[in-house]
Amino acid sequence: MKRAIFFLLEEYTDWQSAYLASQLNQQKNWTIKTASFNKQVTSMGGFKTEVDYVIEKIPKKMDLLVLVGGSSWEFKNSLLKKTIAQALSNGIIVGAICGAVDFLAKNGLLTNYHHTGNPKTSWQEAPQYINPQQFHPQQVVQDRNLVTANGTAALEFTEALLKAVDFADRQTIEKTMDLHRMGYYVYSQEYGDPYC
Amino acid sequence: MKRAIFFLLEEYTDWQSAYLASQLNQQKNWTIKTASFNKQVTSMGGFKTEVDYVIEKIPKKMDLLVLVGGSSWEFKNSLLKKTIAQALSNGIIVGAICGAVDFLAKNGLLTNYHHTGNPKTSWQEAPQYINPQQFHPQQVVQDRNLVTANGTAALEFTEALLKAVDFADRQTIEKTMDLHRMGYYVYSQEYGDPYC
Repeated sequence: MKRAIFFLLEEYTDWQSAYLASQLNQQKNWTIKTASFNKQVTSMGGFKTEVDYVIEKIPKKMDLLVLVGGSSWEFKNSLLKKTIAQALSNGIIVGAICGAVDFLAKNGLLTNYHHTGNPKTSWQEAPQYINPQQFHPQQVVQDRNLVTANGTAALEFTEALLKAVDFADRQTIEKTMDLHRMGYYVYSQEYGDPYC
Repeated sequence: MKRAIFFLLEEYTDWQSAYLASQLNQQKNWTIKTASFNKQVTSMGGFKTEVDYVIEKIPKKMDLLVLVGGSSWEFKNSLLKKTIAQALSNGIIVGAICGAVDFLAKNGLLTNYHHTGNPKTSWQEAPQYINPQQFHPQQVVQDRNLVTANGTAALEFTEALLKAVDFADRQTIEKTMDLHRMGYYVYSQEYGDPYC
């Protein structure tokens, strides 16, 4: 069984984890777990999420670590930094979107990785952010085991991470994302009815 | 204060409520509440949501009732039917997406409303579904206070409901949705940088 852990903060953005978590959790060999600093977090949309792990209890064995965006990523926490750094150095696929990329930048965790993130950010001036030449103005960037995205890139982020973890063959993943991008009727004209 | 209630079932689809809830909950005069049959439901993506109201405690005063889709809408429940019927007859804006439209159809709650829903469904044969001539093969349909959509129409559903509740002027709503549809970089070329 493969395990994905979604790290959530207060006011986490509902839409940035939605497609990815639902895709993964529909497949029998994946299990989805949530984690945060406290046992319960409330999303930006006001949904109260009871998480599976508080940060101290996050297991080291995981196949995907997803850092979900939001406006609460302005803090320091050595345990979270260590958890992410270990995942990165162990070759675990890590996804960070929107505000979560700010945390990576400010903690030196983007060093040596090509990356993207929200376009207007304060972290471009942060002392530990030393590789602005590796920032790419794109919806999503994958460099080895790190996938980064801006806050409007929920589908691109999902697509890149599903490919990174070999969730299915690339064409199947692209068609699933296209169904959401194009909507049922446009998609059906292009590819045929997905439900037949 | 305006109140939106999101009704969730087991394995509710994470992405269908995500944009709408987060938009509404960022505005000070809206509050978001969740409801279900039990105190906790797990989304399709494996997120455990602690709801605000069990069904018996849903307040009658609300400004928006959203029935979130999923694959668990195959059941009968007279209290839920009554709650939705009262909202519709009281002129409250009701949104139903994906599997939730099946429930409306099978309970006669689409009668006299133009509507859409998932394209391949069993409810087209249901005895209480008497107006198939009012089904429209579109991403979303609004008829007075009822908005219906298929499961791939998260953004269109959000846009129609934000307009229906007069959340902001129509152009502002359309531009917010375009930001998600187009992504930051394409949007910026079209309209200018949204964050400046």
